[in-house]
Amino acid sequence: MNKNSSNIMALAPTTSNKRETVCIFGTGDFGRALGHKMIQSGYPVVFGSRSTQTSSLIPKDAEVLSHAEAAQKATIIIIAIQREHYNFLTSLAEILHGKVLVDISNNLKLNQYPESNAEYLAQLVPGAKVVKAFNTVSAWALQSGTLDASRQVFVCGDDMEAKQMVMDIVRAVGLTPLDQGSLLAAQEIENYPLQLFPMWKFPILLSLGLVAFFFFYCLIRDIIYPYVYENKDFSFFIAISIPNRICPILALILLALVYLPGVLAAIIQLYRGTKYRRFPDWLDKWMLCRKQLGLVALAFASLHVLFTLVIPIRSFVRWRISSQIVSQVLNNKTEPLNNTNAWLSDSYLALGILGFFLFVLLGITSLPSVSNNVNWREFRFVQSKLGYLTLILCTAHTMVYGGKWFLSPSSYRWYLPSAYMLSLIVPCAVLVVKFVLIFPCLDKPLTRIRQGWERNPQHSE
Amino acid sequence: MNKNSSNIMALAPTTSNKRETVCIFGTGDFGRALGHKMIQSGYPVVFGSRSTQTSSLIPKDAEVLSHAEAAQKATIIIIAIQREHYNFLTSLAEILHGKVLVDISNNLKLNQYPESNAEYLAQLVPGAKVVKAFNTVSAWALQSGTLDASRQVFVCGDDMEAKQMVMDIVRAVGLTPLDQGSLLAAQEIENYPLQLFPMWKFPILLSLGLVAFFFFYCLIRDIIYPYVYENKDFSFFIAISIPNRICPILALILLALVYLPGVLAAIIQLYRGTKYRRFPDWLDKWMLCRKQLGLVALAFASLHVLFTLVIPIRSFVRWRISSQIVSQVLNNKTEPLNNTNAWLSDSYLALGILGFFLFVLLGITSLPSVSNNVNWREFRFVQSKLGYLTLILCTAHTMVYGGKWFLSPSSYRWYLPSAYMLSLIVPCAVLVVKFVLIFPCLDKPLTRIRQGWERNPQHSE
Amino acid sequence: MNKNSSNIMALAPTTSNKRETVCIFGTGDFGRALGHKMIQSGYPVVFGSRSTQTSSLIPKDAEVLSHAEAAQKATIIIIAIQREHYNFLTSLAEILHGKVLVDISNNLKLNQYPESNAEYLAQLVPGAKVVKAFNTVSAWALQSGTLDASRQVFVCGDDMEAKQMVMDIVRAVGLTPLDQGSLLAAQEIENYPLQLFPMWKFPILLSLGLVAFFFFYCLIRDIIYPYVYENKDFSFFIAISIPNRICPILALILLALVYLPGVLAAIIQLYRGTKYRRFPDWLDKWMLCRKQLGLVALAFASLHVLFTLVIPIRSFVRWRISSQIVSQVLNNKTEPLNNTNAWLSDSYLALGILGFFLFVLLGITSLPSVSNNVNWREFRFVQSKLGYLTLILCTAHTMVYGGKWFLSPSSYRWYLPSAYMLSLIVPCAVLVVKFVLIFPCLDKPLTRIRQGWERNPQHSE
Repeated sequence: MNKNSSNIMALAPTTSNKRETVCIFGTGDFGRALGHKMIQSGYPVVFGSRSTQTSSLIPKDAEVLSHAEAAQKATIIIIAIQREHYNFLTSLAEILHGKVLVDISNNLKLNQYPESNAEYLAQLVPGAKVVKAFNTVSAWALQSGTLDASRQVFVCGDDMEAKQMVMDIVRAVGLTPLDQGSLLAAQEIENYPLQLFPMWKFPILLSLGLVAFFFFYCLIRDIIYPYVYENKDFSFFIAISIPNRICPILALILLALVYLPGVLAAIIQLYRGTKYRRFPDWLDKWMLCRKQLGLVALAFASLHVLFTLVIPIRSFVRWRISSQIVSQVLNNKTEPLNNTNAWLSDSYLALGILGFFLFVLLGITSLPSVSNNVNWREFRFVQSKLGYLTLILCTAHTMVYGGKWFLSPSSYRWYLPSAYMLSLIVPCAVLVVKFVLIFPCLDKPLTRIRQGWERNPQHSE
Repeated sequence: MNKNSSNIMALAPTTSNKRETVCIFGTGDFGRALGHKMIQSGYPVVFGSRSTQTSSLIPKDAEVLSHAEAAQKATIIIIAIQREHYNFLTSLAEILHGKVLVDISNNLKLNQYPESNAEYLAQLVPGAKVVKAFNTVSAWALQSGTLDASRQVFVCGDDMEAKQMVMDIVRAVGLTPLDQGSLLAAQEIENYPLQLFPMWKFPILLSLGLVAFFFFYCLIRDIIYPYVYENKDFSFFIAISIPNRICPILALILLALVYLPGVLAAIIQLYRGTKYRRFPDWLDKWMLCRKQLGLVALAFASLHVLFTLVIPIRSFVRWRISSQIVSQVLNNKTEPLNNTNAWLSDSYLALGILGFFLFVLLGITSLPSVSNNVNWREFRFVQSKLGYLTLILCTAHTMVYGGKWFLSPSSYRWYLPSAYMLSLIVPCAVLVVKFVLIFPCLDKPLTRIRQGWERNPQHSE
Repeated sequence: MNKNSSNIMALAPTTSNKRETVCIFGTGDFGRALGHKMIQSGYPVVFGSRSTQTSSLIPKDAEVLSHAEAAQKATIIIIAIQREHYNFLTSLAEILHGKVLVDISNNLKLNQYPESNAEYLAQLVPGAKVVKAFNTVSAWALQSGTLDASRQVFVCGDDMEAKQMVMDIVRAVGLTPLDQGSLLAAQEIENYPLQLFPMWKFPILLSLGLVAFFFFYCLIRDIIYPYVYENKDFSFFIAISIPNRICPILALILLALVYLPGVLAAIIQLYRGTKYRRFPDWLDKWMLCRKQLGLVALAFASLHVLFTLVIPIRSFVRWRISSQIVSQVLNNKTEPLNNTNAWLSDSYLALGILGFFLFVLLGITSLPSVSNNVNWREFRFVQSKLGYLTLILCTAHTMVYGGKWFLSPSSYRWYLPSAYMLSLIVPCAVLVVKFVLIFPCLDKPLTRIRQGWERNPQHSE
């Protein structure tokens, strides 16, 4: 790739028309799978192993030698053994001097050791150039070729040239290398495959908490209250009715929480009169998990749609409708069409449908492959303009749904307002503040601040 | 990357084991964010600024020097200042001679200036090699690492080697460079981030027009007509009933419009007897936005599904059903099951479900990440074979829905046929012509024409 | 890229600041489209053709020469003519000696010729370095720039350096090269664009077989039986009722078949006491198409959801409900709410909704762009933990749906149990075995085996 790498090429035997030999220490699953893949990509591979007898599992085009012999044949040595067995490498220090050692190891827990495995390796063999790579790929995925999980290979190392050589190999076996900088990044890279949706932790915990709160709230209002006062057993509401109350509430609140930090940030910037000061940490974190918050909200909205659409199939609903009709007939009464009711019912459904439709659109544009194909202006248009429209539609949907019950005293059981009223607090607050911020007297200074203007300039270009 | 770049590497201080220093003019948001990212990727970074006092916002590993001093330290200079301030660069012309200047600027409107910013820069500093890059990336995305919007960086420039050096930097900071050719492409690249879904403009305008037309058409037939003749107020139909008429009509028409240009192209090729002549411009443009047309059609189809599924929950529908039952009882009449009705109702629903299912499948395969994983034959199989099947199912769905009303005079109000009849015109035309084109006497010559045969050969290989 | 490629650069005319000339043999669609794209990317292009008169279709910046003249101008020659016309290349053998010939041809059927076109070309011109590439890209896609189908270009060849040069061109025109190894891979690469969803064949054939079986099973039980014994014509059940029985059954069985091979593999490993022996071939193949099986299952589940949600709109269902109410009224009977029924109905709906929701989540995470963004642990968490939860929910949904009919003799028509009972066999078996495998006495040895431990060690380190 640069001057030195061509020198190395020149050292390659006979003709430059061959890739360099690569040595792999260890004949375990990953070593073999990687060896196989590299032979396929045209690299001569030699294994270094304690026992040099070839097993049927080792790719047949590969040589198996002792560690020392194998190391001498190659410039790049992939260390496919576990950290616990690294010690023996000290005895090879002389042979490994100047070689590129690729650490591919993973740990079993986050931050298991004080230093990363790659740094430990670099300490053991100070003369070698250690590069961290391949730890995010599984042997099974390499072998079967079904690289469904990540094709990305994080690479880090202190030696730029060694890193480049390893990245060439990564590319050659059909994976995508990502340079993560110096060996200091190894700790993070080693932690990466042990993480379990770190960005999702806060949104999911938050929504679990809210679900628990609203579940008990609805339980009291909708099941315990009628049981106590009317001696009616509506316990089966737990299966559908109550979930169908909780889901829309959470969808609305979480959607509002996606747009709240943006509004807060605007207020802070207006107050400070500059954008050149960091936001408080909690606000930064909140802003970074907005996408996850939004997707959790979308999940709740989808559940709400499904729960709503099955309503007419529910045995309880069928019973209620038929008993209403029967009592109507027995009382010999025909009810005329209530036009207001028809308007209310149809428009809250229509608002909900449009809101959900836009919400799904937002979800689709947040798919990585879709968002990679739009430019920044389009992405912001969808996520901001369409996002606020979604919030407005969903809030309106909830308000029209509430309709005339808002002020009816019968909807306050044990002084508890209906749950949907609670869900309106955050979205209404966000919408009101956002509406205020649109006024030119606030919007103009805000735009100028965001373009770099400062009320009390301290940071000159 | 090629001979010259190795020379440059050789000029690098002391050892080749270091990336080259990069200079950034301007310490604004983007300059700082990019500098930070590049330091992380192992590039020594030096900032050129009017005031050389280091601010706390500038990455701590970076030096801040005067413009002239900074420029002398690097081969690549990233111009992170706005076009209006480019003039001062003329005074540095001597220092900048032979350097690679990276223009990253954006404008506020499309075609704001007669020439692109990069070309303007090239005129100001004729001795430098100007490369356009990075203008599609936002500072915020670089900083936060949440590159949700495009990772693609369009690069263009007249000097192949300078371009290659910039593309290496792009790759090193984890983005994907896309060579767009010479500096003439800069105008287009600068316009790119200002575009707002250009390919979607025609499909969306077309569908807005059709929506408006069908809205008033249905308004007249379904609300004004009964109000005038029967004095009934069905104004609430505006919320759900009329949208649920417009959506399927638009979905069907737009889906047919996806396949119409292909049919027209076949007719033109058959008529001309060659494929070696350009289609009319409008047909070319139409063919290029078929995907967008199809996705808009899918959006309308999805809305139709949602609007249909909430039917049984609508207060009006519940009232109508219960009043029907009540009147049935009061007349002491039990209706037997009408088998024909059951067949019609079930089969139009089943056709609609299957059609929608295939439609969603088409939508999923048009996701970039899915279509990247199928070969050309598979893609055409899905988009053509499955596409036509979808069109057939949806057309049949509409026809069976119409069922026996087709010829009933009561469905012609004010001599206006039902809206769904209008929606059948285009799809039926497309299907009939396509059916004719399948006949061997037309299919054979068409296939030969598409393989390069000409009726009156003019273009020899 | 390496030593030799710089030499070639050095031969380039006047200045290294230009890309090398590329020659294209053949002025057909693909030749012209590729030529156009390469000129755009800065390559001088020269066409070799029988007739050297320039056509208006040929990019205007390209020269058209005789084959021999054109070949002499370039190192890389792209052979854009059909295999049948390759013979004439033998006459140019001397000129082509040492050149890089890029074979881009495709066949019309799988394995049409005994050897691949690229190998055939290599035999015809033994002195040239043949590289296979570009055959997966269509001329139309290149021309229109709408590279919706694959951007991946498979490249293979015996000469590493020639391959590298071709891969550079591939990258330059905005496509992604994938090194597939030596020229032996050409056969597979030529077959690739002729394949039609090879991984989907087994899941789709299997599900078609099951659909046919269950269709006739339900036909007998639900239409023929009542027709014979009660003389009722329920033939319209074919449109919705029977599909809505088949779809959930297939979804459940196929979902269970996704997890069955994993369970079988665990049993085999436990029995053998080692993981270092290949699974039987059928199990390997089964494991590789689990994703496809799961997606087909999801398709059936989605259809089931749609078929279920339209139930209240069906004319038959409306008739049945209204006649039930009418008969209730005429008998002057009011039925009280059956609490058990309400519980059963609501909970089977809720289980189904949750199961379907998780199923869709699994489907979304299997989108390539999503699965590329999760690490291996996250991918396994979703596909294994959430997958099993989905299976449990869906099985429970089916069981609760069956509810009290399980043992009722009336549900056995002609000694045939309800179809849903048959669908429970596989999922219950999978869940029971999986449950047994979780017990520590089996889980511990299994975990150790999977970490490489062997009961009768034969394979050392």
